[in-house]
Amino acid sequence: MNIQNIIKQHHLELLFQQGLFGIEKESQRVYADGSIVTTEHPKAFGNRSFHPYIQTDFAESQLELVTPPSKTLENALRWLSAIHEVTLRTLPENEYIFPFSMPAGLPPEKQIKVAQLDNPEDVAYREHLVKNYGKYKQMVSGIHYNFQLDPAFVQALFEAQTKQTSAVDFQNDLYLKIAKNFLRYQWILLYLFSATPTVDENYFRDGTPLQPNQYVRSLRSSPFGYVNEPEIKVSFNSLQSYVDSLEHWVNSGKLIAEKEFYSNVRLRGAAKARDLLKTGIQYLEFRLFDLNPFAPYGITLEDAKFIHYFILLMAWLDHTADQGDIELGKTRLAEVSWEDPLSPTAYAVEGELVLLQMLNMLEALQAGDEIKAIAKEKFAQFANPRDTLCANVVVAIDQFGGYQKLGADIAKGNKKNVFERFYALSGFDNMELSTQALMFDAIQKGLKLEILDERDQFLSLQYGDHLEYVKNGNMTSHDRYISPLIMENKVVTKKVLAKAGFNVPQSVEFTDVKSAVESFPLFENRAVVIKPKSTNFGLGITIFQQGVQNRDDFAKAVEIAFREDNEIMIEDYLVGTEYRFFVLGGQTLAVLLRVPANVVGDGEHTVKELVEMKNDHPLRGDGSRTPLKKIALGDIEKLQLKEQGWTVDSIPPRDLIVQLRANSNISTGGDSIDMTEQMHESYKQLAVGIAKAMGAAVCGVDLIIPDLTKPAENNLQSWGVIEANFNPMMMMHIFPYAGKSRRVTLNVLEMLFPELKVR
Amino acid sequence: MNIQNIIKQHHLELLFQQGLFGIEKESQRVYADGSIVTTEHPKAFGNRSFHPYIQTDFAESQLELVTPPSKTLENALRWLSAIHEVTLRTLPENEYIFPFSMPAGLPPEKQIKVAQLDNPEDVAYREHLVKNYGKYKQMVSGIHYNFQLDPAFVQALFEAQTKQTSAVDFQNDLYLKIAKNFLRYQWILLYLFSATPTVDENYFRDGTPLQPNQYVRSLRSSPFGYVNEPEIKVSFNSLQSYVDSLEHWVNSGKLIAEKEFYSNVRLRGAAKARDLLKTGIQYLEFRLFDLNPFAPYGITLEDAKFIHYFILLMAWLDHTADQGDIELGKTRLAEVSWEDPLSPTAYAVEGELVLLQMLNMLEALQAGDEIKAIAKEKFAQFANPRDTLCANVVVAIDQFGGYQKLGADIAKGNKKNVFERFYALSGFDNMELSTQALMFDAIQKGLKLEILDERDQFLSLQYGDHLEYVKNGNMTSHDRYISPLIMENKVVTKKVLAKAGFNVPQSVEFTDVKSAVESFPLFENRAVVIKPKSTNFGLGITIFQQGVQNRDDFAKAVEIAFREDNEIMIEDYLVGTEYRFFVLGGQTLAVLLRVPANVVGDGEHTVKELVEMKNDHPLRGDGSRTPLKKIALGDIEKLQLKEQGWTVDSIPPRDLIVQLRANSNISTGGDSIDMTEQMHESYKQLAVGIAKAMGAAVCGVDLIIPDLTKPAENNLQSWGVIEANFNPMMMMHIFPYAGKSRRVTLNVLEMLFPELKVR
Repeated sequence: MNIQNIIKQHHLELLFQQGLFGIEKESQRVYADGSIVTTEHPKAFGNRSFHPYIQTDFAESQLELVTPPSKTLENALRWLSAIHEVTLRTLPENEYIFPFSMPAGLPPEKQIKVAQLDNPEDVAYREHLVKNYGKYKQMVSGIHYNFQLDPAFVQALFEAQTKQTSAVDFQNDLYLKIAKNFLRYQWILLYLFSATPTVDENYFRDGTPLQPNQYVRSLRSSPFGYVNEPEIKVSFNSLQSYVDSLEHWVNSGKLIAEKEFYSNVRLRGAAKARDLLKTGIQYLEFRLFDLNPFAPYGITLEDAKFIHYFILLMAWLDHTADQGDIELGKTRLAEVSWEDPLSPTAYAVEGELVLLQMLNMLEALQAGDEIKAIAKEKFAQFANPRDTLCANVVVAIDQFGGYQKLGADIAKGNKKNVFERFYALSGFDNMELSTQALMFDAIQKGLKLEILDERDQFLSLQYGDHLEYVKNGNMTSHDRYISPLIMENKVVTKKVLAKAGFNVPQSVEFTDVKSAVESFPLFENRAVVIKPKSTNFGLGITIFQQGVQNRDDFAKAVEIAFREDNEIMIEDYLVGTEYRFFVLGGQTLAVLLRVPANVVGDGEHTVKELVEMKNDHPLRGDGSRTPLKKIALGDIEKLQLKEQGWTVDSIPPRDLIVQLRANSNISTGGDSIDMTEQMHESYKQLAVGIAKAMGAAVCGVDLIIPDLTKPAENNLQSWGVIEANFNPMMMMHIFPYAGKSRRVTLNVLEMLFPELKVR
Repeated sequence: MNIQNIIKQHHLELLFQQGLFGIEKESQRVYADGSIVTTEHPKAFGNRSFHPYIQTDFAESQLELVTPPSKTLENALRWLSAIHEVTLRTLPENEYIFPFSMPAGLPPEKQIKVAQLDNPEDVAYREHLVKNYGKYKQMVSGIHYNFQLDPAFVQALFEAQTKQTSAVDFQNDLYLKIAKNFLRYQWILLYLFSATPTVDENYFRDGTPLQPNQYVRSLRSSPFGYVNEPEIKVSFNSLQSYVDSLEHWVNSGKLIAEKEFYSNVRLRGAAKARDLLKTGIQYLEFRLFDLNPFAPYGITLEDAKFIHYFILLMAWLDHTADQGDIELGKTRLAEVSWEDPLSPTAYAVEGELVLLQMLNMLEALQAGDEIKAIAKEKFAQFANPRDTLCANVVVAIDQFGGYQKLGADIAKGNKKNVFERFYALSGFDNMELSTQALMFDAIQKGLKLEILDERDQFLSLQYGDHLEYVKNGNMTSHDRYISPLIMENKVVTKKVLAKAGFNVPQSVEFTDVKSAVESFPLFENRAVVIKPKSTNFGLGITIFQQGVQNRDDFAKAVEIAFREDNEIMIEDYLVGTEYRFFVLGGQTLAVLLRVPANVVGDGEHTVKELVEMKNDHPLRGDGSRTPLKKIALGDIEKLQLKEQGWTVDSIPPRDLIVQLRANSNISTGGDSIDMTEQMHESYKQLAVGIAKAMGAAVCGVDLIIPDLTKPAENNLQSWGVIEANFNPMMMMHIFPYAGKSRRVTLNVLEMLFPELKVR
């Protein structure tokens, strides 16, 4: 079978370049000085027995971050970034993630805790590793790169050839070809991407093999790294021989389990190698890669793409490596790993030849310009070893005053960066902040998360067999459909709430002066607001806060309102302050006060300066990518200032509050202040009852309350409900301008997955 | 207290005219000849132990129809019409509702069944009545008119006066004043509204007191009617004396219960008279009124309005009748009841004087022109007795050949009328037909129904303490909120259904020719449709029904599609017929085939004539006020004809189906055909599973199926799901063009109120 011809003849170029990608990244938790922590895996990361994203590898200190399988590398890497952001923001304040594969600042062996997993077999396996290799060697970290060809491509290829009659055998042969050629040429990727020139000298049991000031390309891939004894040879001739030889080493006791075979390519698709004979190889795991310390998440998108096409090249090549070639490849890998990173490799010519074939392949596939540019850049690094990653690392080590220091500095920088926009997941920043917060929590606690529609904020969450869908962060299967329909209709909302006995302000509409004025007795002594049905700038509005006593005043207000519109409304006027109650699952979880945009004078700065200072707050921004909005100084704000006798250049006296808006919306620069603890319990119970009356599991209830410290009474003077919202903003409770943060997204998860015990 | 002055000074005119109205209407079920039925109360009317609308009075044959309290008479009367429509459409085919208060065609006494009520006390009471009055007298029917003044009016009046210090006493006095004045002047309403000039002569135990050919104004209000023995006198002097004297008669055994006191005014607000002393009188029940045989529902809106103002007048008058006045009023009532309907009343002058005061009141209240005109018309009837209702009845009796014959003819006409638009409730015809159907069922089965928002199709339904809200006839608390959100989003729907393992056609979008053509291998051998994302008149669409085999054909189709839009879609093409599955509560209740607008040739008529004939179908109309839509003969239909070689004037041969539309929508004249029984069970189960996967309790699932008789298989050739609808039209299943009707609204009620056992 000539794969190149078939791809060309059958126009499979596009299918060939598609696939499924998954990244696993190990790394050590460290303290600020780069030394490995001796603390346990943080409890906040939920339960490792099922966590799909945040695991531990060998030791408690060794994080293993896992992306879900993704159709594009772009997506895999934004998952990797999200998982990192969650991890870094969850770690204790004094902990960081070390950016290098090889440890620095190793603690005494005794202090290294083997990962405390639930499964006793997993623990026993680790105890065996300790005995065989010592703990230090197990602390080495790296990137595992999982790749599956598009099954449609494999199928098309199978159908286009005639040699093989079994589709499973055909697929196994194809993946074995990739695996063998990869093992033959893996040294090339090592040359380009290695980044472990040195290590903590305690790492070596029998003293360091490195000369003073000696750097190598990859300690990790060298015989001092995370490798099997040289005698452990496994055949890749066929899947059958692979299974047989691997089982031989396990049966002979040289390996405690199949997974102790540290090949840089693993055949994947079944838990046990022998099962692969039935299922067929489904995908490959490539384990060669050192962490890239300069990439915030250990690997760059460009390098990941290059690796993808390098793997494709292994399938594309005319020849297939045999067992001898594989051994040659392994020897070459060991040799290159011990080369000086700043010098050319001994095998530059072979490297260039292989990359030339890659360039030819890209041409034949009509691949995009980006990957061609990347491939050319890598090609050039054979002539310029100082451009390789490892050379750059070596230079940086010297610049920053040592390996551990460099690692610690990078680690601190990375952690600082993820706190810059601590309320967002940068990879998913086109989604709503509330949904990002829920995704953060889901990733943290280990719910299997899938984005069904990014623009529509539609997620699926899964724990075991339990599947839930969530839209906009809080629309779920727990709400009854009738609830939002009730809340959407203000008339119905009022009727339902009034039916259930809550204090609801009434409003009546009129279309002529006469009948409105005649209705005076209906409103006598009631606090009402009389207003045109649609109003500009508040024109035509009269408020009788103390109750309308006098028929003439009433008639005059009616006339004024009718000047602005041919329909007016007379509504009960509620005296008091508006609070937002966030109700979920029969509890008021948060109470928020929204205050109109304002600045507080200091007797020194102008209004303009005060606004600028206030706008510097980390939560303030455009209001969609940030929890709060910057205060504008537009016409409305200037008018508001003018009414108080100020201009933007006035200097208000100390402690004077200068109002910049009449409305309290967060979206016009308002402040959000958590009042959950201050609010009298009786109002919280009312909000719960209001949500219940409408059958809502999640609900934002707006109450007007004159005195939040007094218990609620059964009249509109004590409180009134003006609105209920079936899609309440959660962000303002999680990141209020002042007061305590209420992580209500966690409550959403608790409601959906009570069995998970997220707190 | 001068009520007139207070109303004027305090501008209470409007409040005075507001109130709460409720109508109760008794009538006999009769056969086509007007004779009273001997059948039981139909089981279809649910359970009389709680039915709020459809009850029985004395006998099984005697319906009592009850409206809910309404703020306007307009609303009360449309409820009365709706309850009538439900009742008449539910009665056995050979039963009707007799339009007169006095029976005609009485069966032998033994055949009259006393109402079979659950409560033994209710039955015992009826047995007592039989003993005391005989069964025939109990068969008399009438209208009871309930009225409550606006409590805000009573309150305002109370606050404006100084005499009374107790609000309850004040209210009692006010209602007693109305009651007493009413009893004094009730003969006026009798004169105007009486309609019982004669009766079946078997009615009289001791032979008829009527002379041959004698008609009287009201047999019902005469001593031969439904009245107590003359000795039963109850004091209206005060509430206390009312309670005492009423209890006296019960204790003495002259009345078996308080309710045997047949006053034309009853004081209402408590089950026992004595309790009124605590609660106060809440409203009054006026029981004077004969059924108006010319009004389809026993009373006209105009007359109901007149009665309202007459009651108001009883409060408005300066004086309050004393016990002597009441007795005078009762005597006068008896006298007027025996007068000749065609002759003037003896008390015309008093009648005119009272109505003059009413006209004055209307002036003072600045009441509307309509009521003024009505009052003037009634005023004139004192001079023209032949304009009274009773005179008209007498004329009609002679014209139609007798009392029973007239009653039977009217009864049959009324029943025919309510079947003209048998799918609608005329009073609520501005609402959607599905909601009207649900309301029909709710009224029939006795659920307490409230319309929360008419335009928004928002109802509340209640049975005991169990309250449910319904929008659009099938959006309820049983659906999870996430379900419609899933169904609203086609991308998410596909993902959810594919996740759950259903056959979902896939679609891919492309924005350039090159990448679309390169994707050929993805679609090779698959049946696909290639189309511009937005298409006009189907331009640019290519369908590969047999699977796309050839790359060049594929490329050409892609190019053609891109000529119409800069974005194209390539979708799996499903071969087969589309069926709508209506799923509710885990069951497929109905399967519908929608056929594009068409006519079937008969070799005689032109297409135009055939369309006209088909459009005559009773279900066809504008498509919003009717279940089906008339076929139009516009440009699209003419184009469709042209493609088949026809014009609107062609005469298609017998049995040839002429397509008039390509699309199968009911809204463009399509036919709806029930296929529930024909459809293979496996597809019904699939539809249930699809609804379940989306968490929907009510769901319309559209499946494409090539052969509905073959069991479903797990591939797109066997079936595919193309859409799910969270607000499925119910009307088309209830009233299909062909096939069996499926009353799915009843299933909605069963789902919401399983405890009710509606079938």
